[in-house]
Amino acid sequence: QSPDGEPPLFNFKRGVGLVTPDSSFSINMRFRVQSRAMYNSISKDDFGVSEYEMRMRRLRLRFEGFMYSPKLTYNIQLSFSRGDMDWNMRDQSSINNSPNVVRDAVIYYKPNDRWQFAFGQTKLPGNRQRVVSSGEQQFIDRSIVNVGFNVDRDFGFQAVYNNSFGNLHYLLKGALTSGEGRNVFSTDKGLAYTGRVEILPLGKFRNGGDYFEGDLEREPTPKLSLAGGMSHNEDARRTGAQIGRDLYEQTDIQTYIFDGLLKYRGMALYAEYMAREADNPITINATGERRHILTGRGQNYQLSYIFPSNVELAGRYSRIKPNSEVRAFEDKEEAYLVGVTKYLRAHRLKLQGNVGYHSQNPFLSVNDDYHWTAGVQIELGI
Amino acid sequence: QSPDGEPPLFNFKRGVGLVTPDSSFSINMRFRVQSRAMYNSISKDDFGVSEYEMRMRRLRLRFEGFMYSPKLTYNIQLSFSRGDMDWNMRDQSSINNSPNVVRDAVIYYKPNDRWQFAFGQTKLPGNRQRVVSSGEQQFIDRSIVNVGFNVDRDFGFQAVYNNSFGNLHYLLKGALTSGEGRNVFSTDKGLAYTGRVEILPLGKFRNGGDYFEGDLEREPTPKLSLAGGMSHNEDARRTGAQIGRDLYEQTDIQTYIFDGLLKYRGMALYAEYMAREADNPITINATGERRHILTGRGQNYQLSYIFPSNVELAGRYSRIKPNSEVRAFEDKEEAYLVGVTKYLRAHRLKLQGNVGYHSQNPFLSVNDDYHWTAGVQIELGI
Amino acid sequence: QSPDGEPPLFNFKRGVGLVTPDSSFSINMRFRVQSRAMYNSISKDDFGVSEYEMRMRRLRLRFEGFMYSPKLTYNIQLSFSRGDMDWNMRDQSSINNSPNVVRDAVIYYKPNDRWQFAFGQTKLPGNRQRVVSSGEQQFIDRSIVNVGFNVDRDFGFQAVYNNSFGNLHYLLKGALTSGEGRNVFSTDKGLAYTGRVEILPLGKFRNGGDYFEGDLEREPTPKLSLAGGMSHNEDARRTGAQIGRDLYEQTDIQTYIFDGLLKYRGMALYAEYMAREADNPITINATGERRHILTGRGQNYQLSYIFPSNVELAGRYSRIKPNSEVRAFEDKEEAYLVGVTKYLRAHRLKLQGNVGYHSQNPFLSVNDDYHWTAGVQIELGI
Repeated sequence: QSPDGEPPLFNFKRGVGLVTPDSSFSINMRFRVQSRAMYNSISKDDFGVSEYEMRMRRLRLRFEGFMYSPKLTYNIQLSFSRGDMDWNMRDQSSINNSPNVVRDAVIYYKPNDRWQFAFGQTKLPGNRQRVVSSGEQQFIDRSIVNVGFNVDRDFGFQAVYNNSFGNLHYLLKGALTSGEGRNVFSTDKGLAYTGRVEILPLGKFRNGGDYFEGDLEREPTPKLSLAGGMSHNEDARRTGAQIGRDLYEQTDIQTYIFDGLLKYRGMALYAEYMAREADNPITINATGERRHILTGRGQNYQLSYIFPSNVELAGRYSRIKPNSEVRAFEDKEEAYLVGVTKYLRAHRLKLQGNVGYHSQNPFLSVNDDYHWTAGVQIELGI
Repeated sequence: QSPDGEPPLFNFKRGVGLVTPDSSFSINMRFRVQSRAMYNSISKDDFGVSEYEMRMRRLRLRFEGFMYSPKLTYNIQLSFSRGDMDWNMRDQSSINNSPNVVRDAVIYYKPNDRWQFAFGQTKLPGNRQRVVSSGEQQFIDRSIVNVGFNVDRDFGFQAVYNNSFGNLHYLLKGALTSGEGRNVFSTDKGLAYTGRVEILPLGKFRNGGDYFEGDLEREPTPKLSLAGGMSHNEDARRTGAQIGRDLYEQTDIQTYIFDGLLKYRGMALYAEYMAREADNPITINATGERRHILTGRGQNYQLSYIFPSNVELAGRYSRIKPNSEVRAFEDKEEAYLVGVTKYLRAHRLKLQGNVGYHSQNPFLSVNDDYHWTAGVQIELGI
Repeated sequence: QSPDGEPPLFNFKRGVGLVTPDSSFSINMRFRVQSRAMYNSISKDDFGVSEYEMRMRRLRLRFEGFMYSPKLTYNIQLSFSRGDMDWNMRDQSSINNSPNVVRDAVIYYKPNDRWQFAFGQTKLPGNRQRVVSSGEQQFIDRSIVNVGFNVDRDFGFQAVYNNSFGNLHYLLKGALTSGEGRNVFSTDKGLAYTGRVEILPLGKFRNGGDYFEGDLEREPTPKLSLAGGMSHNEDARRTGAQIGRDLYEQTDIQTYIFDGLLKYRGMALYAEYMAREADNPITINATGERRHILTGRGQNYQLSYIFPSNVELAGRYSRIKPNSEVRAFEDKEEAYLVGVTKYLRAHRLKLQGNVGYHSQNPFLSVNDDYHWTAGVQIELGI
């Protein structure tokens, strides 16, 4: 313990950070807010207003640092906006039975540069767009493919190994988790097993650029990441495996993920393929009601270019094709989106405008018709 | 970016504040707690205990600062006490469907001294008593008029213009907001339009004294603020426009506000008149149940004097007269209140005692009779 | 007020603390996280998995400090993990009707070394194991006796007087509180009255060692604390007095507590006896449904030794014997537990492993059979 009153070592690269004078621990505090105003048209021909979405979409508080040794680090993230609590009283879920304030609460142990072990609640090594922070996306929302098939967060053990063969860099990621998602009280014996391989044949991205959207680093040489993985959720109890409403019966769910990212001189190209299968996708309760798992395939493509003015133009095309077994409940989905982003302070302060053409609208009762959407968003964080 | 380890510039005027060494952003953190113990009599004659109210009424955490430029500021306020979350499971509301932790999350842009633009969730420019922080009131609670008719917080765009003609200072405030209140997921095309004019014929109050209660600044010359405004909520879906339970049918609601504040040498006089009209104040569902909007008029008067010892005496009279159309559901209300406040560190640390005589009691099933109330409150914040 | 920009006085003994340059207030911020992975066997013979408990059990944020004068201090603790919010939608409680984020929010006034007065919400002076922070326990969970009979937190007034006769030190603790527990809106006239006496015949423990588990201070001379108390909850409305589900009828509840703690050279011995009586332990609603109060007696014994390596071995035996009046609803309970704890930075960073043999399992529908449990937990805080 250092003498009382000695100041800590500050840093402000990402929020407010300090290291105690005796280096016994560090803490870095950040927050961020995402506010938006969006419009949804009545149909593809009728541009009248069906619904506005005007809200603070996300409000997060984050604490990170090390404790005891720089090898032992922690990451805590709390979410306070309603939409971020991922809970609706009306679902009457027995698994997801109260608002979720805690998003991440995880302890990392990094014995060396090759290995990282984690224990706690955090994102699974799923599709890249899901793992990229919602604060570092180039569109206002993630794609419909991500919404349909992502494996979200879970509680348990994770490990990452990374190494290189010459210029080729690779990462192996694995997770053994409860399978019921965030903040569950207990879990049956059916756990979740997730694995992912990432190959960076042209070397590492600058400043971790494989895990934020847009080529803000303007890679001077081409950088590529190709990844594949799968998650097996045994005896899943929720419609989306780690997320969603309670199923009426338990079943195994498999999610398959392939994604690739290329960045070069301000240009970023992202492609994602996801698929989901379930042993028993349609579950029935005693009174004959049904709840199903969206099984099927999805593709998402994004292309962007950032100008020297830090204005970025981006386009996206996404589609989901449900398996025939659930076609009675789920239509094909398709979405086109163009976006412009002005990065004032990289992803921490940005202004975004999006215009889209969607086949589905979460705010509309009639979902079988195309409609237009447009909106602006401000992201501000320290 | 400044070199690592350089300390920030601190200030402790309101909580814990710091500016980064390179002035890239600032953050100011505050909290405050309001705890009380109150007694309610059985009736005007029977001083037996009907109910106690013993609780921490408010617990707030607040972050403010600038980001990127001093012209771009943010304000975030979180509320953690149960009473502050403004949600009751039993309401089964489809609009207000989970606890509200976020009170404010707003970004301001001030291009110059005249204009201020806001985007996000914060208080509307409604009646002055509502806009004055609950931490800067001179009584334990706001008046029954405020409870009945205030327009609370909402999400959207706001603008303020201020200027002077000689000594006369004026402010023009406008807001275009969702109309459904805090933390809604989506909103129909019926938005809310709010406007307010404030005129300070005798010049500005010291230290923003027109927006805290009690003349703690002891204005050496008389200061006056006269204000009028209205809010039109199109296709409102809640009984109190931005607050309250779900209506069974949508209707337009208008709220009219006039208030005036005079401060001079420790004396403060506040008067407020509010009125509310609705196109269709009584809504009916399929099974014949009714939910209504309290339409009618309210008046609130407060007079206070602060002694050199920082002990303040204050009195209040308030009344609400419902429109005849809703008289079947709503009685007249009346409340008398006297209060004494010892300001230990202005509004941040104060001890309050109130004695009241009310025609209604939220904790009593029988509300048509007068009763007494008495209580103490401590407000502590940094 | 000190000049702008002057740095505060820092300290990092318990979290991040600072005192303003003019000593007008201080604030100390801490957080802690408890994450665990536990296994429960199917029965005493069948070691198959009945349930896992994999979750972040606790995530707390805490603010402490003084305001205005060092005699006036505050303590605020927020809990964000689901299990810590002590609310389940399915209880449909009218008292505990939304998630409980606020655990503590209390203001202390210490006019001198003898007296301490408190106003607000915090723990009652109940059984020692309950009052010891969940972050300073030597097992993963408190005992079944604590679960059955503790009086938890409440809102109101508390006072502590302490003094010495020679080497003998004693404390007198009293509380007058609402009786309905945390975060209630209102309370009937039936309040709760709690008193407790603690006698330390061999003098004070080092560094407050009578209120954390395990003899981490390795008392060089034997230290003993003997305590007795009771809590009378008039017109209680919940099955556990300050906690639990809503009763169908109100009744008086008495809780009796005796506990003793001995610490010497790394060894700690703790014994606890609790009993609960109720005037009317079984309450019935209009449709004949019953809700009862667990009346009866419980005993808990813990013995531990901490090695010079800061590895501690501990054993616990606990049992509950319900009164005959509620034997139709409640079985006898019994639990054996052994634990090993590696203290890396005292109670703030520790690794725990527990193996137990229990007669009841909260995660099993069949509770009349013994089963095994085993698990690991990491506690990390600043």
